[in-house]
Amino acid sequence: MGKTVTIVRNVMEANERRAVKLKEYFDKEKILCLNLMSSPGAGKTSLLERTLADLKGEFKMAVIEGDLQTDNDARRVAATGAQAVQVNTEGGCHLDGSMIEDAVAELDMQGLDILFIENVGNLVCPAEFNLGEDHKVSILSVTEGDDKPEKYPLMFHLSSVMLLNKTDLLPYVDFSLEVASAHAKKLNKDIEIFPVACRKGDGLDAWYDWLRKARAAKR
Amino acid sequence: MGKTVTIVRNVMEANERRAVKLKEYFDKEKILCLNLMSSPGAGKTSLLERTLADLKGEFKMAVIEGDLQTDNDARRVAATGAQAVQVNTEGGCHLDGSMIEDAVAELDMQGLDILFIENVGNLVCPAEFNLGEDHKVSILSVTEGDDKPEKYPLMFHLSSVMLLNKTDLLPYVDFSLEVASAHAKKLNKDIEIFPVACRKGDGLDAWYDWLRKARAAKR
Repeated sequence: MGKTVTIVRNVMEANERRAVKLKEYFDKEKILCLNLMSSPGAGKTSLLERTLADLKGEFKMAVIEGDLQTDNDARRVAATGAQAVQVNTEGGCHLDGSMIEDAVAELDMQGLDILFIENVGNLVCPAEFNLGEDHKVSILSVTEGDDKPEKYPLMFHLSSVMLLNKTDLLPYVDFSLEVASAHAKKLNKDIEIFPVACRKGDGLDAWYDWLRKARAAKR
Repeated sequence: MGKTVTIVRNVMEANERRAVKLKEYFDKEKILCLNLMSSPGAGKTSLLERTLADLKGEFKMAVIEGDLQTDNDARRVAATGAQAVQVNTEGGCHLDGSMIEDAVAELDMQGLDILFIENVGNLVCPAEFNLGEDHKVSILSVTEGDDKPEKYPLMFHLSSVMLLNKTDLLPYVDFSLEVASAHAKKLNKDIEIFPVACRKGDGLDAWYDWLRKARAAKR
């Protein structure tokens, strides 16, 4: 298996070189780039729909949508008026730097304030591939169980923010915000945690304030 | 990238050879082997807890638990009295044949009727690695959205059964059993679909009947 391991490492290193170049580009253009990651159906697209609609007067925003198949999500976020480009991985389990390079070439980057990358729904593989982002942002929905940070540690270890979504369903599931938060803080003491309900719009102000601060830090 | 593609194919081929041997072994021993797959938190472990408890008088069952980290799930299913062995992938996004070989060596396989393999929570990568199972079984929880079969097609294309879990939460989410079922049937016209609520025990009789039939087919 030695040969395999070498090749895998080369793929990771090639990706890392692309990520460094993308980061330099985003820094030069003063664009805040965020890499959104979660399980399938945790609410990445719903969070984007709310955020793009609520902050459209404040920031110029664009979205790169990653999915195995379909352009459903790009159509959903484009309905808010934001620029969106769909990347289909054709079965691939994560986005990589070359896909972001191609997507950036499709977008009008002029004067952009924030670029959101919605990764493939997967709590494992996307965490291993940097995309030149300023921050990784994880979404965990309360219907998934409060043990998920402990069971999928890399994702939460690397994220600057964990949104705990679907808090409107808390009365109907066994989920402790305290337990999930404690697990995440153990992996990453600086992680910022925001309980939200994207479907109803609850709790989003704290997320928007974090976005404003992160955006200001890029100027 | 030609070299990388070749190596990846070799890894898949080596796994396929192991899977064929495992299948031959399970056939010889007349053990029904099922590979359970879903997103993180869709309810694989809850389904196993119910199934192991409800059918313990009828079948001798064992479980191979796949997780990146922790042995929480093996402890949960072992509490029902069933044999359980935990496989930690140490960050790996799926189980492969060599992990199943090692786990089988740890288990008492004598007179076993059903071996459940609970794969890593991931709707993408586990579908690509056969483990010698008789059937792949997918679980989709209604909180994940009814678009998931369309967006993650391989998993549902290859599964003999799709359990639609957490139906007790249907009143609180936007999910159509009909839409999810239609998408899954389009990918796989023979897929059997069972709406269930593992937390409450609803709808499990149809799943148990399917298990009895699949078990009988191995004798």
